[in-house]
Amino acid sequence: MNFVSCWWLTSSFEHLRYCCKNKHTHLVGKNTLNMKAGRNLKITFVTGNQNKLEEVRSILARVDKIAVESKQVDLPELQGEPEYIAKEKCRLAAKAVGGPVMVEDTCLCFNALKGLPGPYIKWFLQKLGHDGLNRLLYGFEDKSAYALCIFAFSLGSESEPVVLCGRTEGIIVPARGPTVFGWDPIFQPEGSSYTYAEMDKVVKNQLSHRYKALRELENYLLENILCPN
Amino acid sequence: MNFVSCWWLTSSFEHLRYCCKNKHTHLVGKNTLNMKAGRNLKITFVTGNQNKLEEVRSILARVDKIAVESKQVDLPELQGEPEYIAKEKCRLAAKAVGGPVMVEDTCLCFNALKGLPGPYIKWFLQKLGHDGLNRLLYGFEDKSAYALCIFAFSLGSESEPVVLCGRTEGIIVPARGPTVFGWDPIFQPEGSSYTYAEMDKVVKNQLSHRYKALRELENYLLENILCPN
Repeated sequence: MNFVSCWWLTSSFEHLRYCCKNKHTHLVGKNTLNMKAGRNLKITFVTGNQNKLEEVRSILARVDKIAVESKQVDLPELQGEPEYIAKEKCRLAAKAVGGPVMVEDTCLCFNALKGLPGPYIKWFLQKLGHDGLNRLLYGFEDKSAYALCIFAFSLGSESEPVVLCGRTEGIIVPARGPTVFGWDPIFQPEGSSYTYAEMDKVVKNQLSHRYKALRELENYLLENILCPN
Repeated sequence: MNFVSCWWLTSSFEHLRYCCKNKHTHLVGKNTLNMKAGRNLKITFVTGNQNKLEEVRSILARVDKIAVESKQVDLPELQGEPEYIAKEKCRLAAKAVGGPVMVEDTCLCFNALKGLPGPYIKWFLQKLGHDGLNRLLYGFEDKSAYALCIFAFSLGSESEPVVLCGRTEGIIVPARGPTVFGWDPIFQPEGSSYTYAEMDKVVKNQLSHRYKALRELENYLLENILCPN
């Protein structure tokens, strides 16, 4: 017999009220989550990045009973559309970890390049730097871009992963601000006159693609895993 | 007891003379090729592309005893440096096929972009077309590029794949010639005033990156698999 803890959810997601502790079977794809009432949902976040782990923990901490731990697993990066890449990576992570697992992928997508470099931004940044990424757009009028964060979550190796996205629109500009974090100095979010790199961390975290994706993940876990209909 | 057929190789590779039929053990990595004297080396080329299969067959046909057949296997494309991608794909192919196997990868590498789009050229061509690929270089003075073909070959699932490359230098130009084959219309090889697409097939095949890689593969098979020292 399968059990799952279940919470009732306020519209703001700010306060979660425990609503029931009954026998419950939750299906994701063809599979079943086996949890005893009152137990935590422990998710392994496959990452070697402590900052990302802390960011994820601080958001998901609002939801009682979800515990996130990290594990570094060497997973291959695939080519393809961002959602596909995240899903396949999650599938491999679930096989390696053998329980509830999540992975994260970040893309920087230039609209003039129809979403590219997208999932390949790491290589483009590494080889071309901030100036080279700007130069890629010299031949195009449209300098707009979007930052895309994808979390893929799976209950285990037999589960079909689900994909949760967060997207922040903006433009590509010559680098401004500290150059400590990837492409942050060349991405200026819509409605702001600062680049990600120039922003106060608290401000950035309210509009960042990662924050939005984490809220989507939080909603998904609450509505489908912890308190399914 | 292991046997392998062994040929002696003329310097031009145009005439291959059967030299011995003795017991022989050939090691690649930790593994051993088991072949009885006089038997063919049958290689499975993992591709769904009949044209590539024919091209490979016509080159390798000069080497007696090598038979190439094709098989379509759905292999994931990884991200990374071209050689790494080919090697990993070959490893997966060898697992799927379970015997001597080879895979092929093609990259179009812009020097101004430090070798990119490289292994991601398929996606860039698909999304940006010939004009977009030219526009990527508007911000850079250097329009030179090289076409890179990589064959990865493995004796089987326990063998370390080897990588054989062919490279043709050239420049990126506005599309000229029939648009039937990928990025051929925008690549003009060094020393020619025609793009790949404008060239007679026979001429192209004498200088193409794929032809050069196939010659490397032929040399490798002759020197290391069929007639090792």
